Amino acid sequence: MTTLGSPLLDRLRAAVPAGHLLDDPDVTGGYSHDEAEWAPHGRPLAVVRAHDAEEVQRVVRFCVETGTPVVPRGAGTGLSGGANAADGAVLLSLEAMDRIVEIDAQEGLAVVQPGVVNQTLREACAEHGLWYPPDPASAPWSTIGGNVATNAGGLCCVKYGVTRDYVLALQVVTGTGELVRVGRRTAKGVAGYDLAALLVGSEGTLGVITEVTVRLRSARQPERTVAGYFASVVDAGTAVAAVAAAGVVPSALELIDRHCLKAVDDWKHMGLSVDAEAVLLARTDAPGPTGEAEAEAIRTAFEDAGATWAAVATDERESEALFEARRLVYPAVERLGPVLTEDVCVPKAKVAEMLARIDRIAARHDTVIANIAHAGDGNLHPLLITPPGDDAARARAQLAFDDIITDALDLGGTVTGEHGVGLLKRDGLARELSPAVLQLHRAIKTALDPHGILNPGKVVAVDAR
Amino acid sequence: MTTLGSPLLDRLRAAVPAGHLLDDPDVTGGYSHDEAEWAPHGRPLAVVRAHDAEEVQRVVRFCVETGTPVVPRGAGTGLSGGANAADGAVLLSLEAMDRIVEIDAQEGLAVVQPGVVNQTLREACAEHGLWYPPDPASAPWSTIGGNVATNAGGLCCVKYGVTRDYVLALQVVTGTGELVRVGRRTAKGVAGYDLAALLVGSEGTLGVITEVTVRLRSARQPERTVAGYFASVVDAGTAVAAVAAAGVVPSALELIDRHCLKAVDDWKHMGLSVDAEAVLLARTDAPGPTGEAEAEAIRTAFEDAGATWAAVATDERESEALFEARRLVYPAVERLGPVLTEDVCVPKAKVAEMLARIDRIAARHDTVIANIAHAGDGNLHPLLITPPGDDAARARAQLAFDDIITDALDLGGTVTGEHGVGLLKRDGLARELSPAVLQLHRAIKTALDPHGILNPGKVVAVDAR
Repeated sequence: MTTLGSPLLDRLRAAVPAGHLLDDPDVTGGYSHDEAEWAPHGRPLAVVRAHDAEEVQRVVRFCVETGTPVVPRGAGTGLSGGANAADGAVLLSLEAMDRIVEIDAQEGLAVVQPGVVNQTLREACAEHGLWYPPDPASAPWSTIGGNVATNAGGLCCVKYGVTRDYVLALQVVTGTGELVRVGRRTAKGVAGYDLAALLVGSEGTLGVITEVTVRLRSARQPERTVAGYFASVVDAGTAVAAVAAAGVVPSALELIDRHCLKAVDDWKHMGLSVDAEAVLLARTDAPGPTGEAEAEAIRTAFEDAGATWAAVATDERESEALFEARRLVYPAVERLGPVLTEDVCVPKAKVAEMLARIDRIAARHDTVIANIAHAGDGNLHPLLITPPGDDAARARAQLAFDDIITDALDLGGTVTGEHGVGLLKRDGLARELSPAVLQLHRAIKTALDPHGILNPGKVVAVDAR
Repeated sequence: MTTLGSPLLDRLRAAVPAGHLLDDPDVTGGYSHDEAEWAPHGRPLAVVRAHDAEEVQRVVRFCVETGTPVVPRGAGTGLSGGANAADGAVLLSLEAMDRIVEIDAQEGLAVVQPGVVNQTLREACAEHGLWYPPDPASAPWSTIGGNVATNAGGLCCVKYGVTRDYVLALQVVTGTGELVRVGRRTAKGVAGYDLAALLVGSEGTLGVITEVTVRLRSARQPERTVAGYFASVVDAGTAVAAVAAAGVVPSALELIDRHCLKAVDDWKHMGLSVDAEAVLLARTDAPGPTGEAEAEAIRTAFEDAGATWAAVATDERESEALFEARRLVYPAVERLGPVLTEDVCVPKAKVAEMLARIDRIAARHDTVIANIAHAGDGNLHPLLITPPGDDAARARAQLAFDDIITDALDLGGTVTGEHGVGLLKRDGLARELSPAVLQLHRAIKTALDPHGILNPGKVVAVDAR
């Protein structure tokens, strides 16, 4: 199907190779939003599926010259609306730029195009005895470009940090249409401002990423798993603080509540035990006797916090099934109805208190709130579930969402631990940051995007505020 | 002694408590430069030794209102001239703000004022079973504020990263005189741009740091030391690549050449063996059998690369003496005459080639070049030593300095691994970064320092270029 087109569209079409521009509304509709179901999105001018950095540059220059917004996107697995279409925007898909350019085992780095899927990179690294740690639950689908744009976290970041900790260098198209390299390939470097760190997590508002150089680690020893069952999510939260107080840094520490386990089991029939209100899954990758001691310390912390059952796993298949269930929670819960996903992060010592407050918020607003959490770093993902088509329930869920933000800030936390600001946390950001810090954001946004074309309206709005 | 003063000085004096302003030229002279002997410096208006963040804010506001440059400084141990006085500047010393505000063992963080000495923080953390990793050789003297401003590295960053990897949050006085907090206390957080990461390493050109929140690790196991003697620095460089190729990440991997060992021994009479052209000192902090295996793998890599002698240390006192000697190299070499300190960083696989080129550069320009290096991450510190008062030797050393930069860039390296740009690497920065990336630097500098008062002329010049 073709549309009649417009002079603007014709001009964009002339700038990119045939077949790279999509303007069939049935197709562009699928590119117009990410997985944040509750975030609004507009109607794009067109989608461009860029195949190289120069094509990205041509699209950005078209946008500079015509004042057209450009919204970069990877796999569209975001959860904050950061990739949602602005009206009339060019949706610039990087998914076709999916080449692993280089893996250098000796320097411990990889160079990849932004459309490489996280899991694909991890598997390629494993063939060299190397490991790319950041492991968002979306790893089988999400792209490195999107991971970098949102500074994605994941399960192992409780011990190994987030995406920013692994980005050495970026190739970027700037807001003025320049194709530049920032960062370095060396282990260290302080030549100028850390523009790579600034761009990581900037959600496409300061530049469009066309290549990523990441630091790698050596492949790990097999992990030991410790599981604990708890009679309440609050008890599980207490156990998280107990693990931290014991001085153990697990390589994963995940919380899954009964709602989530049931949703996965109803879908996948994995035979998961759901006779607990909450399960904690911990891992340690310390080698040898140190790993044994850490696993035992975690188990003891679980029991001291009131676990109804806690054990170091002897069956690796069983523990892998539990982590697989963790990764399936989000799609499983989505089957139950529209889900509003929270992403607050609080100090480790406040996890139990925050979970108790979420329970009260759920009751207060008559909203089903399921909990999964990267509990070990205090990053909670309350999932607010509403029946399809129930506008009143949706309104109540929105109130619950806002109350969770209020309580997280009250406990010294942040409104977003790893999903990003996008559209859903714009108001939250303004509550978390002082007016002077928001002004610093606007100053940087204006400096690097003087034409206001880069994913406008996301993270921080510049105009008329 | 008092000076006649000036209206400007009188106005500044009125803004700060009595006794905090110093204007005796005998005193201000000592504050007018850091330890980069070759970098120029001007005559300041005065020194203010601030005692709290509000006083810093008053000084910055005075500078905004009067268009006076402000040069923040810690202990003045920098090696790039980053803290050197601009003519007529206020030198804003943070050394009196030396309080450890908080150490929170459960969250694994500390909050400190900028004037806290690195070693003081490390000792305070140790009392809680915690560890603040960044360990520049200047740790006994340099301050956390200066470490943050320069993104200081050190010995253990080959395994544990640099200062930026440990900064969670900053309190900062901005270029418009606002007192703000950026960053977070939680383990993760993506609420807006990473302004803390941008400010780390910005050398006082984007804000004045008044408080720092750092992430801590658990205290480590005792380390094992491996020493290797080599018949040339190039052989030692080959051994560095062999360690990387073996997949071992040591917790330190330092190179010290014969010149440096001799300088320390002549000064401190430590009885160091100097019957080798270069010594490599490696450490591993992996526990138990893993640590034993790593130490053995390092020793084997040393021997395979042609070490004349290599062994895992059995005498902890002896290996501690070698690391102590490493820390004393810089002051020991300074006793021999004016030293121009290099700070290039190259890929690990290029360390041997870079050391060979430095040898050739030394011969070409008839300059004594001693080598110390954080060899494990490719960060080399050639020390160009000239006889006192020999201007011709100084001119030759300057040519050698420039050639080292050329070769480091040629090998895919950076002009500064950890010392910062300051004044000495301004030209090098312009050679390393593309014009478009320099323009991004200027755009950010102008956005955050609209009055051009924050350490002007350092890192990147904004005007008339």
